[in-house]
Amino acid sequence: MSSPPAEVATVGRGGFLRACRGLPVERTPVWFMRQAGRSLPEYRRLRGTESILESIRRPELAAELTLQPVRRYGVDAAILFSDIVVPLVASGSPIDIVPGRGPVLAEPVRTRAAVQKLRPFVPDEQAPYVAETVRGLTSQLDVPLIGFAGAPFTLASYLVEGGPSRSFEHVKALIHNDPTTWFELAELLADSVLASLRDQVAAGAAAVQLFDSWAGVLSRHDYERYALPASTRVLDGLGDLGVPRIHFGVGTGELLDLMAGAGAEVVGVDWRVPLDRARARVGTGVAVQGNLDPTVVLAGFPAAAAETRRILAEVAGGPGHVFNLGHGVLPETDPGVLAALVELVHAETAGGALAAPAPSAPGPGAL
Amino acid sequence: MSSPPAEVATVGRGGFLRACRGLPVERTPVWFMRQAGRSLPEYRRLRGTESILESIRRPELAAELTLQPVRRYGVDAAILFSDIVVPLVASGSPIDIVPGRGPVLAEPVRTRAAVQKLRPFVPDEQAPYVAETVRGLTSQLDVPLIGFAGAPFTLASYLVEGGPSRSFEHVKALIHNDPTTWFELAELLADSVLASLRDQVAAGAAAVQLFDSWAGVLSRHDYERYALPASTRVLDGLGDLGVPRIHFGVGTGELLDLMAGAGAEVVGVDWRVPLDRARARVGTGVAVQGNLDPTVVLAGFPAAAAETRRILAEVAGGPGHVFNLGHGVLPETDPGVLAALVELVHAETAGGALAAPAPSAPGPGAL
Repeated sequence: MSSPPAEVATVGRGGFLRACRGLPVERTPVWFMRQAGRSLPEYRRLRGTESILESIRRPELAAELTLQPVRRYGVDAAILFSDIVVPLVASGSPIDIVPGRGPVLAEPVRTRAAVQKLRPFVPDEQAPYVAETVRGLTSQLDVPLIGFAGAPFTLASYLVEGGPSRSFEHVKALIHNDPTTWFELAELLADSVLASLRDQVAAGAAAVQLFDSWAGVLSRHDYERYALPASTRVLDGLGDLGVPRIHFGVGTGELLDLMAGAGAEVVGVDWRVPLDRARARVGTGVAVQGNLDPTVVLAGFPAAAAETRRILAEVAGGPGHVFNLGHGVLPETDPGVLAALVELVHAETAGGALAAPAPSAPGPGAL
Repeated sequence: MSSPPAEVATVGRGGFLRACRGLPVERTPVWFMRQAGRSLPEYRRLRGTESILESIRRPELAAELTLQPVRRYGVDAAILFSDIVVPLVASGSPIDIVPGRGPVLAEPVRTRAAVQKLRPFVPDEQAPYVAETVRGLTSQLDVPLIGFAGAPFTLASYLVEGGPSRSFEHVKALIHNDPTTWFELAELLADSVLASLRDQVAAGAAAVQLFDSWAGVLSRHDYERYALPASTRVLDGLGDLGVPRIHFGVGTGELLDLMAGAGAEVVGVDWRVPLDRARARVGTGVAVQGNLDPTVVLAGFPAAAAETRRILAEVAGGPGHVFNLGHGVLPETDPGVLAALVELVHAETAGGALAAPAPSAPGPGAL
């Protein structure tokens, strides 16, 4: 894996980073959240039954898993194969990733004493394999590599709830009943996340995405008061590195302006908010990323193509759009549909202008 | 149960219906979605281990379960003890309500043939016990009774998915891949829902709420095209009855204007959208209902009171607000906190004007 595989698409080179900065592009760049994952047969083959955290610790394997979707789909960006809990696990939190369930802690962090036992994440000591994977990738990739981390609120949710949650009851109780401890936890996590992202950029990541996957469970007031400061601390702390910062969450329609204001060049938008509205909310000078419903992709290419054309029409003529799903690729997704969507987006936006939208035609338009 | 229990609060009489119509009120009316439920010890005692559908079929029991929260909380409206699947089950769909999971179908409805086997709901033939419960209640209640039904999209989701779902993959596939069958299903459900709500109003319900609990999983485009027409058919079909129509969903920030336009006097708003924004979206002449985060109620009275004061401040001075949670009462909720919140809302809004909000003071303000 020392020279770039011939199959890696070169056409997208540069377009993704330009779109993140709101600059005109030859065609709209595309990548998919969770593009490396169980939807790919080559991923399932290579991962086998080993735990995801074990796979992340093996740089050659992690690099290969990162490359797989770039080869197959011809996407315009790669995203590091890793997991948002890596900084937590590496700094000593006993977290298990249970297949089909997610990160689980035997002893949730719900008290000041528990928070004070947490250690900060020191990437080169505790998880040198991440930077090693990134370094190995930069020589093999012909498209930019996106580094990523979970935002402090989302990471805190796992720690406090002890696993995936529907109501987020314990983290909301901590926020409201012991804000001092909450802010201590959020700041510690912000520093760990910042260290992780700086480490990835130092090793060669050309952009970063901060996943605040669960921010949308908070009211706007609670988000602004309790979650935003720590995310701002992370994004601000990356400002000197000069890489585009993407800020993403699900169900965050009411938060988009705040998420942009936290220091993001790009705001990721789920499928609920039409992109023209999202643009109005994030304001001038901030790009948008999204926002095809990943569940509609399961319905097959004609449905997904019609939705893709609608989305492209919503941002017609404007630069500053990175095409993506509104959330991660679902495991049951047909990779053939995703590949056809990449082709469709590239074809429809070729020449930097949109072809007239034709939502009723099922196939990809001509170049 | 032939005369009103002495404990039933009389003070709210009339206020709820006036607020639904946007008229000035002496104080802001309050009720809670799922106020009759497992959070109440008297409910758990009375329900025992009998299935919820069995309890609904017993008018005396269902009436008593409806009355319990009115007695305990002094809320300004009662909501019928029933379930959104009643019209489906009564018209022949084999649905089980599995405790802790929700409605489950052994054979999901995913084909045209399956849709064509569904029968319309005929309330007086298939579920006369509902009207009987309502009639029994009207003589016992000193506050208005709200009738309710699930909206066609939400009911269809259960039928098509075969149970609660995270991705709503099958219903979205049906919508996109076989819109003809989808609209046939949605129209059949609209007619059943309309029949159910007309039956409840004829028996004495003074207002209705249409629960489109899962509408928020759809993009605005899909909601407008595929879900809204059937909900409009229901709400329009109630227009001649002269009762306020409340239209509610979760995660519906982008849909509020459409939900108002479907023919609602009141739009229910979850906790994600600040009520001043919600008001701007639903437009003049439509009231808003909500929107305290039910999970914050679990954090205890001081936290819930601070949030309640913030919400009241967001609608300061304006009529057309019914205080409620942003979703149903969670089973772990302390009824004492809800009772104190009713008192707080009444106290803070007494005289038709808001007291100065004091978010840091934990107790209920003086009258």
